[in-house]
Amino acid sequence: MGPAAKARWRPRIQGSGFSAMARKAARKTAGRNAIAKRSAGNKAPAKTKVKAKAKATSKASAKGPARTKPAIAARDPKPPANPALIEVTRGEMVESRHRIAVAVVDAGGKLVESWGDIERPIYGRSAVKPLQALPLLESGAADAFALGEPEIALACASHNGEPQHTDRVRHWLGRIGCEVADLECGAHLPLHEPTMLQLIANGGDVTAIYNNCSGKHAGFLTTARHEGEPTRGYIRFEHPVQQRVTKAMSEMTGVDLTRAPRGIDGCGIPVLGMPLRAMAHGLARMADPRKLSADRANACKRILAAIMAWPALLGGTGRFGSTLMATLRGRFVLKGGAEGVYAGILPSLGLGVAIKADDGAGRAAEVAMAQTLRRLKLISTAEAKQLADLLMPPVLNRAHLEVGRIRSTGEGRF
Amino acid sequence: MGPAAKARWRPRIQGSGFSAMARKAARKTAGRNAIAKRSAGNKAPAKTKVKAKAKATSKASAKGPARTKPAIAARDPKPPANPALIEVTRGEMVESRHRIAVAVVDAGGKLVESWGDIERPIYGRSAVKPLQALPLLESGAADAFALGEPEIALACASHNGEPQHTDRVRHWLGRIGCEVADLECGAHLPLHEPTMLQLIANGGDVTAIYNNCSGKHAGFLTTARHEGEPTRGYIRFEHPVQQRVTKAMSEMTGVDLTRAPRGIDGCGIPVLGMPLRAMAHGLARMADPRKLSADRANACKRILAAIMAWPALLGGTGRFGSTLMATLRGRFVLKGGAEGVYAGILPSLGLGVAIKADDGAGRAAEVAMAQTLRRLKLISTAEAKQLADLLMPPVLNRAHLEVGRIRSTGEGRF
Repeated sequence: MGPAAKARWRPRIQGSGFSAMARKAARKTAGRNAIAKRSAGNKAPAKTKVKAKAKATSKASAKGPARTKPAIAARDPKPPANPALIEVTRGEMVESRHRIAVAVVDAGGKLVESWGDIERPIYGRSAVKPLQALPLLESGAADAFALGEPEIALACASHNGEPQHTDRVRHWLGRIGCEVADLECGAHLPLHEPTMLQLIANGGDVTAIYNNCSGKHAGFLTTARHEGEPTRGYIRFEHPVQQRVTKAMSEMTGVDLTRAPRGIDGCGIPVLGMPLRAMAHGLARMADPRKLSADRANACKRILAAIMAWPALLGGTGRFGSTLMATLRGRFVLKGGAEGVYAGILPSLGLGVAIKADDGAGRAAEVAMAQTLRRLKLISTAEAKQLADLLMPPVLNRAHLEVGRIRSTGEGRF
Repeated sequence: MGPAAKARWRPRIQGSGFSAMARKAARKTAGRNAIAKRSAGNKAPAKTKVKAKAKATSKASAKGPARTKPAIAARDPKPPANPALIEVTRGEMVESRHRIAVAVVDAGGKLVESWGDIERPIYGRSAVKPLQALPLLESGAADAFALGEPEIALACASHNGEPQHTDRVRHWLGRIGCEVADLECGAHLPLHEPTMLQLIANGGDVTAIYNNCSGKHAGFLTTARHEGEPTRGYIRFEHPVQQRVTKAMSEMTGVDLTRAPRGIDGCGIPVLGMPLRAMAHGLARMADPRKLSADRANACKRILAAIMAWPALLGGTGRFGSTLMATLRGRFVLKGGAEGVYAGILPSLGLGVAIKADDGAGRAAEVAMAQTLRRLKLISTAEAKQLADLLMPPVLNRAHLEVGRIRSTGEGRF
């Protein structure tokens, strides 16, 4: 390995916001690590490793501006194993196992149920798109450009690139005086295979319109247009578009995300680390917005209503979340993200669900979400039986023969 | 969940071969589980779970016929966590982590180095193709049909479906009087994106020739032709083609695979469960075949020579194994498989390496193999620096910006 690998990666600890408690925990951990290293007979000099557990403040106001809070410190890079909640079988064996953390939280921040380490910071990725869409409505941009429910759903989508998605995004861009070239999300082939095959067969260009995030980016462009801001560079953390998103997300999750560990998403926008529990809290506030300001509560309700009315726009044909939402319409909003993240917004229970597969496997996060909804009685036993191929999907071989299943291990109470 | 899920999956324990030791271990585990369930306050009746650890017999003769041995019992479905050897970073955080087991074994079956639980049974998937190719040479079929090194390499390949692969397999099929329709591996789009785009743009049919396993299947058909056996159904466990493969694999790994847990591979052939350690032992015997029969040793040498001479045929353009073998030519044979399995055959050290990512992630298995080769000094520090993007690959976003890395965590001595 090159020098970059030798200089072991360390979590960035933001000094100024680092609380005394976290410092104490860090000293303790450093001591433990040194002992572990000695007992393992490792002759390398004992390195101090810093660990900090920044709990989400459950009482954070969702109304006020983002406040100064302790930074989220990235945790020890060698955290304990989360429970193996999901398994993949093949014939007579379990072939692979996925370790998962699940947080179920109410709007007051109370933990209702959990599996695994829910304080470990994660990136919400595309699963938090419904939260990222708040400024589109709150700014008045959606109404100024007369966006309908389909556009609002698309602003929260990781879509398949089917005509139902791309035709609408293209028309929407025209309405705000933008074009596909203004999208800064990058291009990829449509996720929907028949659409992809047709596009290639027709010799069509693979543009950013097919990017699964093109609706979210159209939403970003809409707020920039509405506020008279330059559209160029709207994906950068410093741009007012992302500043509004960060503010709304901070208020909803109760975490000051301006000081969170940061990275770049697949589509170029910032990703901000937060405890899984805080992500669930933000989703719960959306599910039960009674304590939010009237404007924000209204935005939350409109976003959920739009997604529930147009579940196919959120993903598309054959996709887990779209299919489950369409089949059990009105019961919940589900949104997945890359690297095994999944969000659930459950208005009837006033709960938010946040799921992260340690290894980043989307197949595991989907089945874990299905099982969580079963546990919460939002899917009945009779429905689960009918939907078995969605909730506990078969593993197919190239000849389309079922050779295994992806399913809950039943570990813990899961 | 439906009734299928309620009736919890259990590993099949083959009664007749179940040793007294394994039974004792099973009783112990059942007791432990009952206690754990009680202390967790779970009110479900305590179920007994059966666990058996079937060690690979390291002294198994590679010459004799498959002998009667204790069956491999699938282990407790809730095994302990393997070490998190590989991490995926994004910006300032580790976003995902992969738990891995690695076995490094010599031809005598001696464990040289290991990480994680190497006795847990795994399916070798496509990583054991070099072992599965033994009957093609030993039967005399390869010589009878005048196969060259390219065909032998293709028999061990999980190829990209590029013209260099498919043209050769098509020609080979013609030589044995077969056609593409005789391949029972199923069809999928070529893995190599430019080839896929061209195929679709030209309106070509997606046939089994593009299946990454079409070379292996051509090899199977070749042995059936040579022996005058029906080709139809050659993928079935009971067919003489697969019986020969099972026999050779049993002899090489030291495990009676006729009694192993069984499943079906992506390409339709049987997969047979064996401890990771046994898989490494089989690969080590290939790396150092001095104690094998002259015929088998010769077959091993020819297979390794063919792969080393034609690394691009084993995978293809841009693939990890092909690229690393081509860059450091002659140093090792590497072969990956689905669900995070990787095989290394190291002739200069006389060692076999078997890797399994618990979660089935190929990205993790590749980086773990790279790191194992570094640990074994088969890749120097200077070479690792030059090959950093292969050994510790960047995570790219849709705009091709580097946003993270996949790399070793440095846990344990890894």
